Amino acid sequence: MPDAEPPAAAPGAVRIVPLGGTGEFGKNMTVVEIDGQMLVIDCGVTFPRHDQMGVDLVIPDFAYVQRPEATLAAVVLTHPHEDHIGALPFLMRAVGPITVYAPRFTLGLVRSKLDEHGLVGDAELIEAGGGAHHRIGPFEVEFVSLIHSVPDCVAVSITTPVGRIVHTGDFRYEAAPFRGEEREEAIRTGRHMDIPRLAQLGEEGVRLLLADSTNAEVRDAPPKPESAVLAGMRSLFASSDGRVIVTTFSSHVHRVENILKAAYLDGRSAALVGRSLVRNVNIAMNLGYLKPPNGTLVSPRELDQLPPDEQVLICTGSQGEPLAALSRMARGEHPLVEIQPDDTVVYSARTVPGNELAINETINRLRRVGARVITRESAGATFHVSGHGSAWDIELMLQLLRPEHMAPIHGELRQQRAHAELAGELGIPGGHLHMLENGDVLDVTTNGVEIVGRAEVGMSYVDRVASDEVGEEVLRDRRHLAEDGLVLVVVSISASNGALTGEPDIVTRGMSGGENPEVLAETRAAVFETLSESAGARVTEFSVLQHRLHDAVAGAVKRASGQRPIVLPVIVEV
Amino acid sequence: MPDAEPPAAAPGAVRIVPLGGTGEFGKNMTVVEIDGQMLVIDCGVTFPRHDQMGVDLVIPDFAYVQRPEATLAAVVLTHPHEDHIGALPFLMRAVGPITVYAPRFTLGLVRSKLDEHGLVGDAELIEAGGGAHHRIGPFEVEFVSLIHSVPDCVAVSITTPVGRIVHTGDFRYEAAPFRGEEREEAIRTGRHMDIPRLAQLGEEGVRLLLADSTNAEVRDAPPKPESAVLAGMRSLFASSDGRVIVTTFSSHVHRVENILKAAYLDGRSAALVGRSLVRNVNIAMNLGYLKPPNGTLVSPRELDQLPPDEQVLICTGSQGEPLAALSRMARGEHPLVEIQPDDTVVYSARTVPGNELAINETINRLRRVGARVITRESAGATFHVSGHGSAWDIELMLQLLRPEHMAPIHGELRQQRAHAELAGELGIPGGHLHMLENGDVLDVTTNGVEIVGRAEVGMSYVDRVASDEVGEEVLRDRRHLAEDGLVLVVVSISASNGALTGEPDIVTRGMSGGENPEVLAETRAAVFETLSESAGARVTEFSVLQHRLHDAVAGAVKRASGQRPIVLPVIVEV
Repeated sequence: MPDAEPPAAAPGAVRIVPLGGTGEFGKNMTVVEIDGQMLVIDCGVTFPRHDQMGVDLVIPDFAYVQRPEATLAAVVLTHPHEDHIGALPFLMRAVGPITVYAPRFTLGLVRSKLDEHGLVGDAELIEAGGGAHHRIGPFEVEFVSLIHSVPDCVAVSITTPVGRIVHTGDFRYEAAPFRGEEREEAIRTGRHMDIPRLAQLGEEGVRLLLADSTNAEVRDAPPKPESAVLAGMRSLFASSDGRVIVTTFSSHVHRVENILKAAYLDGRSAALVGRSLVRNVNIAMNLGYLKPPNGTLVSPRELDQLPPDEQVLICTGSQGEPLAALSRMARGEHPLVEIQPDDTVVYSARTVPGNELAINETINRLRRVGARVITRESAGATFHVSGHGSAWDIELMLQLLRPEHMAPIHGELRQQRAHAELAGELGIPGGHLHMLENGDVLDVTTNGVEIVGRAEVGMSYVDRVASDEVGEEVLRDRRHLAEDGLVLVVVSISASNGALTGEPDIVTRGMSGGENPEVLAETRAAVFETLSESAGARVTEFSVLQHRLHDAVAGAVKRASGQRPIVLPVIVEV
Repeated sequence: MPDAEPPAAAPGAVRIVPLGGTGEFGKNMTVVEIDGQMLVIDCGVTFPRHDQMGVDLVIPDFAYVQRPEATLAAVVLTHPHEDHIGALPFLMRAVGPITVYAPRFTLGLVRSKLDEHGLVGDAELIEAGGGAHHRIGPFEVEFVSLIHSVPDCVAVSITTPVGRIVHTGDFRYEAAPFRGEEREEAIRTGRHMDIPRLAQLGEEGVRLLLADSTNAEVRDAPPKPESAVLAGMRSLFASSDGRVIVTTFSSHVHRVENILKAAYLDGRSAALVGRSLVRNVNIAMNLGYLKPPNGTLVSPRELDQLPPDEQVLICTGSQGEPLAALSRMARGEHPLVEIQPDDTVVYSARTVPGNELAINETINRLRRVGARVITRESAGATFHVSGHGSAWDIELMLQLLRPEHMAPIHGELRQQRAHAELAGELGIPGGHLHMLENGDVLDVTTNGVEIVGRAEVGMSYVDRVASDEVGEEVLRDRRHLAEDGLVLVVVSISASNGALTGEPDIVTRGMSGGENPEVLAETRAAVFETLSESAGARVTEFSVLQHRLHDAVAGAVKRASGQRPIVLPVIVEV
């Protein structure tokens, strides 16, 4: 391993520093730097593991971007998933106003996100979709259309004095219409892979490729196109006598379109439930990425007037997120939708690792009411295809770009290694395969490509802030973090029924007035009340309990002290 | 439908006439013509259907190539499978000496084939592998490497005054190493797909693409690489206590190599059985396409000295061909190999449609002895992957070449339509998709691409001549066809035991001396004797009976008349 302090880069050299997304899934962020000018590619969040309690988001460590000797030229975004854009507001809080280049649909979602954070005025948003070229400081940047599970994805190609560097973002292969109406339509709706341009880049020469490793281990899966899901949905709708509830990722606009099409073809209407889904679909419709079949999309209340076999509900919650629409329905807490015994619930999404238990809990609740539940596991690829290419797609990308050097990103070590093995089989020598970890400093010079040292990188944790389903009040809390301090609540509960098994520990830090007995008493009372209510309703999920504790404690502290500290509920199961 | 007599082509126009391989599988042959100069792409045979009794080969109708007003500039061959090269000797008999352009391995097999026919001196054989450019009459021809189930396959790109025309031959996609040793090795051993050049051709512009439709209907199959078979074989060899007998296509050199590698890695030796297999492997080794692992390849007699769990036999007969090695072994008629109860027989080949019954019969015979039999049907893609790309591979080819016009070839109507649908989805308008049948005359001019009429094409039948397992004596017969006429023998046999159920009908035509009673009597006696012997041995397969009848009758006629007519045995089962 190289030493901790990286040497200064040679003049004209390109320095690449991944701040997130290598050796891990999530919080993707890569710095590309020439002579002290930085281009940041993506700026994402990740969601905490189960053992990171009380934390709602993990974001990259921005220290490297904040070095006084360097300037941030711009941020370019490959696509608008949270693990690629979610940390943008936090970056702006750290470095101030920024310039962002991204394709149109990504900009639409970014604008909405920054607006929620009151930051939209501080960002210059420049449209840069497939085919666009921009000079950004010392960087000649070209954007090349790719396909993933959200419209308008791009790879970023950077021409530098030491050669071309290409960063794929996330991608899968899908056939790219190359003529006529079909091509225009694919480009207009952001589902187009520019194979000819990728091949040309390969011909012109690619010095270094940074590419998505997510499914590099998957060698056996057939590359099914997104359109296969339409067929699956059609046959499901045709064979279901009751209402069908489909849950999917909220930004998967093409999936939503396929569900709407299938509904239309089966004579059903469809409604959207879930804040992020409604917002994303609205943005997609406004920008022309999604055109629901005539009259198919109605409001949930209108849908409710129709017979069950003419209803399709599309909702959030595919990952068992406790506050998402489907999870609320399953708990019988949704204000608009009550699960019925003859409902069919379809998971049109994969299970993101780590969410197994939460999804399982939701499914058990749905089953308890009597609903039929169809999962990715029970139905194979009928209702979901991955947005990440398998080994097959990755090999194709390598063959089109023919890079001299390759660094697998977007994956844990096992996926990065599998990706490097594929590249090795295609002829890239071992010395040209660079296994990066967050903070590694990779220098590209005329002489070679080499890890020359490490930058200090850690992780930053954020208490519930950017989550879709939480409102402005928490955001306001956040802005006052510096003044208002923190309340830590540690409770032990019974695994079987969620009841308290001992006294809660309550710790405050940084609150004006110090440890106020009245605040402690109010807080303790709020904790008891919340947990006993939850135990009565057999709610045992940590995240639901955390949410409820958070709100109850925040309210109690506010009442007792007038202050709004950050509240971190920690739950220990015994 | 256009009229039967096609109009004269405009000067400088390119005329394309498929003489075989459209609306059918097999006997692929396409004429490309400019100003009366013809380039023929491939010249294959097909094997007869069950209802074409007494026929051993079907070849294209060469009348179009023999028109006095046109000249044959050359034949170019995409790869050395029988359905692409098998009719070459018959073409030479029809048109005289020819020039043939083909990759090195194809030329090796063609040379051997022409040699057997005594025709090698009449052909100028010019090597033209991937990357080669040749000016052939008015045609600028470029050869582009592709991958199929035999080494050294190429697509043919023809630059003409009205644009570039590309003919793919057969192909599947497989990852192409693009750097270093891996790339050199892939090129040297003829398993390389030149993706960059295909993309460049697309960039430069392709007016018309003629492309392989074989697996266009297959949308669900994962594109497994040939290397997957190595893994399958290794685990089979490791888990088998006895001898393993693998049957595959005799020209599938890479398959043979994988079997040899797996044998080597399991500490087994391997021998080849079957004339065509031995010949093809020898040619492949001589030309450097195949390098067996040290000491692994031994003679069948040497193999026999080893313990069974150190033996692998590779043999012909995967299609149940009655005279091939495995079929003989199964009947207990092979001079070198006797099937043992602890043998494992693996079909490392697909079942070519039409051969189901013959293969089934062989498997029953193998089972009767007690051998374990593993088929494509029982083992999936573990021991065989197709050499023809599925929809996925076809779409990739379309996207790389981006043709203005497309004509699906190499398939029946259903595969052609499926191929055209894929092209339509990728944006080629319906009017630019040309559904060709054998004999259709497709003119490519500056104004458009259009079927302007039809050439007369029929089929030509050949009695057992070019089959691998038949010797020179039949070839000599063939050369005297014009003088010696024909004997037709029609027999009815019992389906259950192969015994004659009535008097044979014997018809002669074109024999000198007319209907000679002595010939008829000898022939009748030979028929009775042959069929009663076969019935005693429970041989009921048409092709075995046909073969035996053929030889017996030919012998009888020779003895009685000194003549060697063509003998056509027709068997009717009652």
